[in-house]
Amino acid sequence: MGQVAWKGLFLSLFDYKTEKYVIAKNKKVGILYRVVQLSILAYLVGWVFVVKKGYQDTDTSLQSSVITKLKGVAFTNTSELGERLWDVADYVIPPQGENVFFVMTNLIVTPNQRQATCPEVGRTEPLVAQLTYFSMWAGYKRKADKPFSFRKPLLASAENFTVYIKNSIRFPKFKFSKVNVLATNNESYLKNCRYGTEHPYCPIFLLGNIVRWAGSDFQEMALEGGVIGIQIEWNCDLDKAPSECNPHYSFSRLDNKFAEKSISSGYNFRFAKYYRDAEGVDYRTLIKAYGIRFDVMVNGKAGKFNIIPTIINIGSGLALMGAGAFFCDLVLLYLIKKSNFYRGKKYEEVKSSTRKSLSSPALNGNQSPEQLGGL
Amino acid sequence: MGQVAWKGLFLSLFDYKTEKYVIAKNKKVGILYRVVQLSILAYLVGWVFVVKKGYQDTDTSLQSSVITKLKGVAFTNTSELGERLWDVADYVIPPQGENVFFVMTNLIVTPNQRQATCPEVGRTEPLVAQLTYFSMWAGYKRKADKPFSFRKPLLASAENFTVYIKNSIRFPKFKFSKVNVLATNNESYLKNCRYGTEHPYCPIFLLGNIVRWAGSDFQEMALEGGVIGIQIEWNCDLDKAPSECNPHYSFSRLDNKFAEKSISSGYNFRFAKYYRDAEGVDYRTLIKAYGIRFDVMVNGKAGKFNIIPTIINIGSGLALMGAGAFFCDLVLLYLIKKSNFYRGKKYEEVKSSTRKSLSSPALNGNQSPEQLGGL
Amino acid sequence: MGQVAWKGLFLSLFDYKTEKYVIAKNKKVGILYRVVQLSILAYLVGWVFVVKKGYQDTDTSLQSSVITKLKGVAFTNTSELGERLWDVADYVIPPQGENVFFVMTNLIVTPNQRQATCPEVGRTEPLVAQLTYFSMWAGYKRKADKPFSFRKPLLASAENFTVYIKNSIRFPKFKFSKVNVLATNNESYLKNCRYGTEHPYCPIFLLGNIVRWAGSDFQEMALEGGVIGIQIEWNCDLDKAPSECNPHYSFSRLDNKFAEKSISSGYNFRFAKYYRDAEGVDYRTLIKAYGIRFDVMVNGKAGKFNIIPTIINIGSGLALMGAGAFFCDLVLLYLIKKSNFYRGKKYEEVKSSTRKSLSSPALNGNQSPEQLGGL
Repeated sequence: MGQVAWKGLFLSLFDYKTEKYVIAKNKKVGILYRVVQLSILAYLVGWVFVVKKGYQDTDTSLQSSVITKLKGVAFTNTSELGERLWDVADYVIPPQGENVFFVMTNLIVTPNQRQATCPEVGRTEPLVAQLTYFSMWAGYKRKADKPFSFRKPLLASAENFTVYIKNSIRFPKFKFSKVNVLATNNESYLKNCRYGTEHPYCPIFLLGNIVRWAGSDFQEMALEGGVIGIQIEWNCDLDKAPSECNPHYSFSRLDNKFAEKSISSGYNFRFAKYYRDAEGVDYRTLIKAYGIRFDVMVNGKAGKFNIIPTIINIGSGLALMGAGAFFCDLVLLYLIKKSNFYRGKKYEEVKSSTRKSLSSPALNGNQSPEQLGGL
Repeated sequence: MGQVAWKGLFLSLFDYKTEKYVIAKNKKVGILYRVVQLSILAYLVGWVFVVKKGYQDTDTSLQSSVITKLKGVAFTNTSELGERLWDVADYVIPPQGENVFFVMTNLIVTPNQRQATCPEVGRTEPLVAQLTYFSMWAGYKRKADKPFSFRKPLLASAENFTVYIKNSIRFPKFKFSKVNVLATNNESYLKNCRYGTEHPYCPIFLLGNIVRWAGSDFQEMALEGGVIGIQIEWNCDLDKAPSECNPHYSFSRLDNKFAEKSISSGYNFRFAKYYRDAEGVDYRTLIKAYGIRFDVMVNGKAGKFNIIPTIINIGSGLALMGAGAFFCDLVLLYLIKKSNFYRGKKYEEVKSSTRKSLSSPALNGNQSPEQLGGL
Repeated sequence: MGQVAWKGLFLSLFDYKTEKYVIAKNKKVGILYRVVQLSILAYLVGWVFVVKKGYQDTDTSLQSSVITKLKGVAFTNTSELGERLWDVADYVIPPQGENVFFVMTNLIVTPNQRQATCPEVGRTEPLVAQLTYFSMWAGYKRKADKPFSFRKPLLASAENFTVYIKNSIRFPKFKFSKVNVLATNNESYLKNCRYGTEHPYCPIFLLGNIVRWAGSDFQEMALEGGVIGIQIEWNCDLDKAPSECNPHYSFSRLDNKFAEKSISSGYNFRFAKYYRDAEGVDYRTLIKAYGIRFDVMVNGKAGKFNIIPTIINIGSGLALMGAGAFFCDLVLLYLIKKSNFYRGKKYEEVKSSTRKSLSSPALNGNQSPEQLGGL
């Protein structure tokens, strides 16, 4: 094309093309369309943005570190053990305060087990030895298997122990960190507070309360053992002040009490203390520990404004408007009385075998460039 | 404006405006457009909704609690230790059945280590003492470093031990909880079943099977130790019945056997048992424990119908239709023979310097209000 | 309808319908629209796709297994304990190298605690006994509570210990696994390297460095204890080579040193070693262990091309174009001088009470079927 045509092409890039609309003076469809528009708008603003915070990017993979520390001393007086005091070093397993800790509330002791000291065995075939050994143990168990102080756990007073749970979290995507311990200057508060409805952000929990909130009875659970889940949920809107990002605690029992009696009702495990006598012979005291295992499980969700989800939600909302218009078109063009008439208006049939087509090359010379602008 | 105009403005809000279309009686492009429409529809329905469940909101951050319990006894008869029986209290570390547990299958004992009792040292400078002390240990090791019963691990029979794995999970977003233990009344089933292809939901695993499924040889692994990952995957469609949300187990070896021989082949660690003799002098027995560490790793994904992702997917699908139409326009307007003609029809050029424009203010007086309705 | 009509209906399915456009030769609005288009395009390509990788599906729930192994020996010489050597079996708790491990750097020993051997008590009421017992302990503590070698932790040399951290991860959604240990044949490298700026992928860390990188002083921390978080972040673009998916380490202190002095400054816990004397009476040595707990926390994010997010992002981008056109329409139709004229052109008012309407049934007979094609 010539100099002029190129100029025309360039200029036409800046012509503005807009859809041609047909105004159908039909109140029914008009109102219908407004209703559709309004409901889509209401859904978008009310539900997607206000309720679901659709304008936020979310991070659900949080880093968490839990430190737990128990406090409490129990005194027991039994025929087998005599007077005894139990402190954390005795009843907390493992001792180093991680997110899963076990409080021993009852135990069966099988003392002074020595290898190859079963009077009724003597030198025997390994297999037999093994079997007899077992039977011997069975014997021990039969004697010992009813917990001391029969219908009462040994460490019944563990109900009054307290646990201090410290949880540091971090949302890596937003580089946001927080601790579940109130930043207070009131030293005595954190010393003396107990978690509860009136102290929702106190990090010190009474074991008895935890079990009760999980819907179980401590004394009963202490006898056979069990597992309690302490869920800490962080649901943070980082568009607000960090001080409004607080943990929410919930408690649930994880060993379903009644199911599978067959395998393990409650919770218990065996461990041994190893000794060596004057002759240097090893022997052990086997302890079957019953108690309550606490699993501190942390999860969370942080949201922060982000342009991409916002655009995506707005965009899909707009696309819905298009769908609404399509729906109203159907009504206008096929369901109302004068639909034939409106169809005729909306759709302009063109046939290239009319005189118009002859003129089209004429107006095409200066049109072809400006169409390219439509790309 | 006057009373009337305002009324018009209000009424015009309920006029329905619809795009004016040009019908191009061109079968080629028409068919092309139908093909485009159908393929987008197929993608949206078939792939996004049926295959990818695009109508669901998903939760991938699940809370999980794992309880493990081993069963099994091993009998060994070695010159060093004599006849010995090993039970859970002896070979499971730590004893309290968490999601990571270690089964000792082989060990090197360095007995009766006393501080400052190295005959060849006597009173020396700390540093020297330390060095010699080491050499002494090295000596111990040299003696002991070949595992007992040379090419055979001590607790070879650990292959037949069983582990009961109980996994309680919770999807916080949907407040959905489940346990991997079948809710059956058949007590004996859960006592006697073993996980396998015929019992995919039995929570009791044979250690030997786990290792074999991870692609390793138990005896070989028991000698030098290793780490096995037990992946429990929960892939739940919460639009279906809860009973269809079941765990899927997979097993893999986590210590790559051949790599980095230089640092630690297999898996082992040292721990000590502390004793005190009659004179009240402390001494210890150092144990280098070889064995298999099992890491139970739980992850999952739950999906549930949610209106927002549904709308987003539909919306973006509709937007694609627009893109399809745009593409077909290009064909119609620039690639086919009679494109010039169709351009002339699709694009109506208006110049405000024509007689038309004079009439436009006329019909504008009563139009201006109703355009506002177009907002 | 007749045979012919049905044929028409079918054929009309393949007529192509395209919106009719009005070309407004108004450069201002035209340029405005191009600017809007370009900025949306720039946002979509530049931000959503290039920067935010909007074409990728992401997996943030990774499975992780951590193996840790410490190396190092310390020599101490104190009046209480005399010359002593400390190795991993002595100072690492728990010994089996999991993702949370504790290195004892200081301790308070309360030796030879026997039950019911408080000279000043004798036979008393349980409660009193308990109290006195406590006071006795308090006495022990008062004696022992100043750590040995006052302003210096016992195991000051722990600063030079090294820890080997092995982390195997797996992104379940993409079935992608990797280990943080370089796959090198150079044995000596993995033996001798130390993590640092020049060795970013060496898995061996000097404890002193870790603490310093976390912004704390080792000696000071070793005295009262503390918790250090070792974050391993995997940020993997799985569209690239697996070799480009590497861990990034960061270190932070998790026990905020200054806050809540009231409850627990630093980090410590109590545990006991149990002995039995010749008379078979149990006694224990209580150890209050101060030290540094290291929490290895792994998180990650993997991205891989996926058609669905791609379509969603493109779709919402296109929908935005529509919004842009709507905005430009407002300008054209209400804000510029000749807006009245353009409104007249864009909106074609139709009244069914004109002569046209009479003809419409005529052209409707053969139009009605082909409209159905518009569905």
